[in-house]
Amino acid sequence: MKRKKIAILGPGSIGKQTMEVLDQTHIRERHELVSVSGYDDNDITPIGEAVDNFNVKKVSFAVPKAVEQFKQLHPEVEVLSGEDHLEKIINETDLDYSVISVSGAVGIKATIASLEKGLITCIATKEVLVAAGPLVMDLAKRMEQKFNRTQILRPIDSEHNAIWQALRAVENKNGFNLEEVRRIIITASGGSLKNWSIEDLHKATPDDVTKGHPTWSMGAKITVDSATMVNKALEVIEAHFLFGLPYEKIAILRHNQSITHGIVETIDKFHIEQKASPDMRMPIQYALTYPDRFEFNLSEPMKYSEKVGEWKSLDYNKIDYMDPERYPAFHIAMHFGMKGGLMPAIMNAANEIAVNEGFLKGIISFTDIGKVILNTCSIFEKDYRWGEELNWDNILEADQRAREYTRKILISVPGGSLDELNAKEFAKEHQWGAKE
Amino acid sequence: MKRKKIAILGPGSIGKQTMEVLDQTHIRERHELVSVSGYDDNDITPIGEAVDNFNVKKVSFAVPKAVEQFKQLHPEVEVLSGEDHLEKIINETDLDYSVISVSGAVGIKATIASLEKGLITCIATKEVLVAAGPLVMDLAKRMEQKFNRTQILRPIDSEHNAIWQALRAVENKNGFNLEEVRRIIITASGGSLKNWSIEDLHKATPDDVTKGHPTWSMGAKITVDSATMVNKALEVIEAHFLFGLPYEKIAILRHNQSITHGIVETIDKFHIEQKASPDMRMPIQYALTYPDRFEFNLSEPMKYSEKVGEWKSLDYNKIDYMDPERYPAFHIAMHFGMKGGLMPAIMNAANEIAVNEGFLKGIISFTDIGKVILNTCSIFEKDYRWGEELNWDNILEADQRAREYTRKILISVPGGSLDELNAKEFAKEHQWGAKE
Repeated sequence: MKRKKIAILGPGSIGKQTMEVLDQTHIRERHELVSVSGYDDNDITPIGEAVDNFNVKKVSFAVPKAVEQFKQLHPEVEVLSGEDHLEKIINETDLDYSVISVSGAVGIKATIASLEKGLITCIATKEVLVAAGPLVMDLAKRMEQKFNRTQILRPIDSEHNAIWQALRAVENKNGFNLEEVRRIIITASGGSLKNWSIEDLHKATPDDVTKGHPTWSMGAKITVDSATMVNKALEVIEAHFLFGLPYEKIAILRHNQSITHGIVETIDKFHIEQKASPDMRMPIQYALTYPDRFEFNLSEPMKYSEKVGEWKSLDYNKIDYMDPERYPAFHIAMHFGMKGGLMPAIMNAANEIAVNEGFLKGIISFTDIGKVILNTCSIFEKDYRWGEELNWDNILEADQRAREYTRKILISVPGGSLDELNAKEFAKEHQWGAKE
Repeated sequence: MKRKKIAILGPGSIGKQTMEVLDQTHIRERHELVSVSGYDDNDITPIGEAVDNFNVKKVSFAVPKAVEQFKQLHPEVEVLSGEDHLEKIINETDLDYSVISVSGAVGIKATIASLEKGLITCIATKEVLVAAGPLVMDLAKRMEQKFNRTQILRPIDSEHNAIWQALRAVENKNGFNLEEVRRIIITASGGSLKNWSIEDLHKATPDDVTKGHPTWSMGAKITVDSATMVNKALEVIEAHFLFGLPYEKIAILRHNQSITHGIVETIDKFHIEQKASPDMRMPIQYALTYPDRFEFNLSEPMKYSEKVGEWKSLDYNKIDYMDPERYPAFHIAMHFGMKGGLMPAIMNAANEIAVNEGFLKGIISFTDIGKVILNTCSIFEKDYRWGEELNWDNILEADQRAREYTRKILISVPGGSLDELNAKEFAKEHQWGAKE
């Protein structure tokens, strides 16, 4: 069997775990890692390891300095660079699969390039589907027909991977029959600040947030998003586009252990529930091997799978409508995300800047994140003439403009402009989901 | 759309619940109940109701007295009778589906007739698969090809129905890919005597056992089988034949609430778990509508499905290897069932007689059930020359002989012959499953 050639775009947490999956002998027989793309010099070490372990011959970086450094260390490797290095890697390499694991909306263009080339595109970057969901799904469907492939776009995110697996219980010749789905339920572990008092949240430092997610080991941005629950808003929006389900058919269940990842509730009232150890390598492997399954031989998750009894204390709570006092940013993100059009892209951009360039840099407080999203989205909602049509150019422009505007807010924060908008009040007024 | 014509064989608990499923407007549009078979005069009332509600034109009874009584009450209805009344109903009615819900191995001939006619055969009578599993599955496969139908034999038993649904996660063009299954796990609620001390079990009366199954409402025989755990042995054997899985890939999980019914553990270590209210009408509907799903509009199960949070206290325990002190009959049933050939039929016959004509009639004690099964199986194992070939005649003969022999044991009980065989010692020595 000819091995499938894979590119990993983004050698962060997901990229590294993808390499661990690929390093299993029986997976290596089927898949061949041929290129890896990074961002800056922080990525030199993991990409160097990929070169050593997998004999990768072509890599890329966005930042020129990293290119020079890498070339000195690995003169035998071809190194691409530039703002469009992700698309270059896709277009200039012989590939069958891509793993999109960059952080944030920067993955949009790479996803387009990957789908247009007909690659099986395994996507961990939920921001791509949030910002450009309808266009990405439309492109994926057209490319499936053009290249005669099924499930060309495959979710790696654990909740979406779980729903994707559970949806096979409503699959027929034409694909998943969504009319047979009563709702899908994704789980939320609560994030690293779930036991903090609401009054103290504004004091949380980047260290407080990133050092201790209760169950998952992830990158910094997604760990902050989990604490604000904006991550869960992004996931609901991602599920809405990815599976084509209306928002009222998507629910969230609080589940602290992250063992149940997703549930499909059918119209005949069965629950098909997917459980797994909280280990991203498992959904990564499934996305790569689908529709087949192969043994998962990596060590950690065994502790759960071997002993199903360890799951005895599953601490389900009720369907979660998210306390707007604790998670105002969630409701703000859902409110604007559900408006559709360009608003999800704008909301996502505001969140990315608020987290990466605001909170994680110590410029704004944890509770300011929601305020920043609200501020940016409110302004763009009023001034919306330029973005009525949903197309790639408008999405990329909205993304850029929202980033620039949000950066300005961050600069003005010391002046206190955020106080004018009360995020909690807004969240209460526009609360997501029906309170029962 | 032409409505599918259905016969219900056995108007007991499952038969009545099948009628409730068929009584939903949207199911009635697709399915038409055309005949019902009973046993004796106890079945006159439920079959009369089927005539009134569904305009059934043809019914049958085994016992002649019931035929006469029924004809006086419903002179417009054709009534068949005789020992072979089940096969007659199948063969002399225009049918698309059958529901096999008689109690015990009497369902074997009816199942053969139904499959040979190419009917979609929804089977609740696990004893048929236990006694004649390899032949039934072989017949089903041949008839699927002959009549170009898929899944011609469909399990109604909640655990098997659950596994059947969950197996869709490993389905490909050729059906369920069992190589992708690491193991299946079925749940056991523990039965009505689970809180009794082991020392008191011999005092349990039929009322003690049948009045209080913790979660399911079922017929008398299966309620006794649940208390001895022979029911779970029958289910493991049924699953072995039905899904074609070796015994070492079948595990039991104790779960008191009967909400999780079955789990498929894949080789890539995901769990696909099926949950539902403990309501047999749900698996019945799925068996009838498969591969499609339609709304389930009956009232009770809503209490769970509406409020997924009510499932928060799922009381999993470890994989259960069944205490041989408390459940010796389980280990005896597994020991002989796993021998294959005619032994499962002999074990099943011994259990049916021990329960129906022994314990439920007050002739033997609850703890004698396992002893009777052990006694019969031990004798037949020694005298096995006549039954080496697995064919229909031998199965029916083994079934009859085992019944006759077991009846003789029941008569001799007052003389104390059962004491010679210590069921608990045997169960300990031949314990099912590896103790870890």
